[in-house]
Amino acid sequence: MNGAPRLDAKALFPRGVTAFSVDDLTGYRGPALKVLEGAGIKIGDFIELQLSGDSVKGTLVPRYQNNDDRHIVVKLKSGYNVGIGVARVSGIRRLAEGERPSFTSSPPKAEDGLPLVSILGTGGTIASRVDYRTGAVHAAISAEDLYSLMPELSDIANISPEIVVSVYSENLEPEHWEKIAAKVSECVARGARGVIVTTGTDVMGYTSAALSFALQKVPVPVFVVGSQRSSDRPSSDAYLNLIGAVSMAVSAEFSGVYVVMHADTSDERLAVHRGTRVRKNHTSARDAFRSVGLEPVAYWSRGGLDLVSPSLPKRGSGPFTARPRFDAGAALLKFYPSMQTAYVRSILDSGLKGLVIEGTGLGHINGKNVAAIKGFIDAGGLVCMTSQCIWGRVDMNVYDTGRDLLEAGVVPLEDMLGETALSKMMWVLANAASSGERRAMMTSDLAGETTERTLPGGSA
Amino acid sequence: MNGAPRLDAKALFPRGVTAFSVDDLTGYRGPALKVLEGAGIKIGDFIELQLSGDSVKGTLVPRYQNNDDRHIVVKLKSGYNVGIGVARVSGIRRLAEGERPSFTSSPPKAEDGLPLVSILGTGGTIASRVDYRTGAVHAAISAEDLYSLMPELSDIANISPEIVVSVYSENLEPEHWEKIAAKVSECVARGARGVIVTTGTDVMGYTSAALSFALQKVPVPVFVVGSQRSSDRPSSDAYLNLIGAVSMAVSAEFSGVYVVMHADTSDERLAVHRGTRVRKNHTSARDAFRSVGLEPVAYWSRGGLDLVSPSLPKRGSGPFTARPRFDAGAALLKFYPSMQTAYVRSILDSGLKGLVIEGTGLGHINGKNVAAIKGFIDAGGLVCMTSQCIWGRVDMNVYDTGRDLLEAGVVPLEDMLGETALSKMMWVLANAASSGERRAMMTSDLAGETTERTLPGGSA
Repeated sequence: MNGAPRLDAKALFPRGVTAFSVDDLTGYRGPALKVLEGAGIKIGDFIELQLSGDSVKGTLVPRYQNNDDRHIVVKLKSGYNVGIGVARVSGIRRLAEGERPSFTSSPPKAEDGLPLVSILGTGGTIASRVDYRTGAVHAAISAEDLYSLMPELSDIANISPEIVVSVYSENLEPEHWEKIAAKVSECVARGARGVIVTTGTDVMGYTSAALSFALQKVPVPVFVVGSQRSSDRPSSDAYLNLIGAVSMAVSAEFSGVYVVMHADTSDERLAVHRGTRVRKNHTSARDAFRSVGLEPVAYWSRGGLDLVSPSLPKRGSGPFTARPRFDAGAALLKFYPSMQTAYVRSILDSGLKGLVIEGTGLGHINGKNVAAIKGFIDAGGLVCMTSQCIWGRVDMNVYDTGRDLLEAGVVPLEDMLGETALSKMMWVLANAASSGERRAMMTSDLAGETTERTLPGGSA
Repeated sequence: MNGAPRLDAKALFPRGVTAFSVDDLTGYRGPALKVLEGAGIKIGDFIELQLSGDSVKGTLVPRYQNNDDRHIVVKLKSGYNVGIGVARVSGIRRLAEGERPSFTSSPPKAEDGLPLVSILGTGGTIASRVDYRTGAVHAAISAEDLYSLMPELSDIANISPEIVVSVYSENLEPEHWEKIAAKVSECVARGARGVIVTTGTDVMGYTSAALSFALQKVPVPVFVVGSQRSSDRPSSDAYLNLIGAVSMAVSAEFSGVYVVMHADTSDERLAVHRGTRVRKNHTSARDAFRSVGLEPVAYWSRGGLDLVSPSLPKRGSGPFTARPRFDAGAALLKFYPSMQTAYVRSILDSGLKGLVIEGTGLGHINGKNVAAIKGFIDAGGLVCMTSQCIWGRVDMNVYDTGRDLLEAGVVPLEDMLGETALSKMMWVLANAASSGERRAMMTSDLAGETTERTLPGGSA
């Protein structure tokens, strides 16, 4: 225990980032608070906890108000947090005092002659701060703040930050997608070498799909980026995601709309996902985002870019016209057993123009709702089928139920994700001139939203 | 090409199974039909297709009526089907004629003294036949038929087959779950050493969860089994799934409700999934079913049973009372961006008693719908939150939206699957005496529907 290295707590955190307040013991209560107060320890201190025959060293971090009162949580050098039950603690001591870093007040200036990269802020965790009194996260940091938090960005690009909208992503509406798409288009016209859209991760897949349809043939890369942990928290994934996106915006040779997020939990490697084939598959993990039905198109690390897909569209300077119109008259309906006809009829009567169903298996709903679906289609409504399985392809020719739905006019969407199908339908409803064109657009691959069948129709 | 082995086509198929009609060229049309007719080849023949510098050998299988007319599909020795474009075919010849196997007319008799295993049929692909005129699958085979298709079952158990209900699984209703659960209970009372429930895979996860709640503390293993390919098709996974389930019903030392399906695509290994933690994650793959958030509890192959989970309930003879009551007044609502208040209000007004929301991320919906949700709860409705991410845990304390929903009375369900939560709510609505008891039941782990947190509340 003597000779324990005196680590600099600041080294644990990115440059210029306020890790947390070190003035108090935020979030600690009861037995845990008593132990910490008794030892004169504050949040941010680098401490050692003695356990029976073992010890743990780390930086004391705050707790949420609603957490229990029997654990002390420290951040290990590895970056992971670990909670230690106070009953196990036989001793505690401070190895180093907490630092008091603060936000830098103004962004550094970029070098002349660096390529222009636009960062468009739309809210979300990547642009939020933790309120450690409640453990809560509030939308607060502007795109400019982010820039000031990551001064190294000024070494690689001339950053043009702008807030387009500032909402938690679950509150995003098609009208926000319209604003974002129009703004990306403006940035491209102004000569941006690439555009970064920072957004909340909750509906990031829906948003990246929406932008993929509105920005078809965009001549530069557009990276949709978020973080699972807010930018002012020591374990935030925001830094690597944003730095990687800016780096690729400058140097990547491909164009199109992609999601850029952690590829794994290592904080070293990013995955670049096709904007129409990506899904948030975990509530909290750094590598929550996964490409479905295909590999990510590329991986990025500080060592460079590994292209996986050989057929990405090249950067181009040809004519590009955004089509940033969406219609909120579409809904996504996940089928479940015993779904009542009253339920389905009430939805269809709520003013919808189109419905994406996440059916079961190959694309099914219960038979008793087929008539209502048919009536909606006969009256001009658009109904498309995807699968709640997530992986695999709908095939409505195999079972009676599927054939009945096809006969009613339901449009099968191959292996399109339900979330992508909803964004696409909102875009199609605003951009197709006729019901025939709607159907044709929904079943045409416009932005890589479906993958090709690997076998041409094996039968058994 | 000379010296090609004369394989017995029958060896490719399980005993006693009609692979398909060999009287015609069902499903083939146009160019493909012309090539096959020209060579005098019938479905079921073992053939060789010459390609440029290559050749493919396999058994000709039928095609669906709606498939294209430019591919010939053969089943390789590996069991896989491959479609060959007729344009690539430079020659074709028959190596062996198709067999004409037929269904055996009556089940073999089991040996005296073998343990009793009940097989309860409820419909689904595992109990269906392909109509090769349309490529369609119809519910047709009874549990007794299945038994006659797999005579080896008579070597290990005294099988008692019974049809409880016969519907495609997407048409299953809570009243069907009631019948199935009651029948399982009867079988246990009659001394069954294990019970197999064969069912369609579409809503198998919902059904296995429903049975898990209705059959808590069941003293024998109950295996919910299906197949992704119908039992009369050569590539069916029905055989191994059913044989493995019967084998485990006889010999496994644990009790409880589990799903038994292929662990991978090899047709050699089965996974045993906890009935409340399993999800159909692929529309068509044999290994579509996956345990979410934990390993399968066991793997089975003809070599034996590999237990993964050390803490499964043991077989027991204690008192067991099924609680086979469900209430169809619950719905599952997957949130999507811009979900309209008219949509949500119409659902809440459709006569529901409870609602499971699949929110985004940690458990969110858009702010504009919180008031309607609160109104529904204030009027006595039950609303619970899961995540559409599928993996990970809801945590509604992190963001404003989550806290607003908690304040409105929404009940967070940890890492429970949305599908499981719906089945549980239907069971709770029928079995709880008060609104307080409903909440308590929803948040108590009754049948392994939630997993424990791995860290006691790290904060960053």
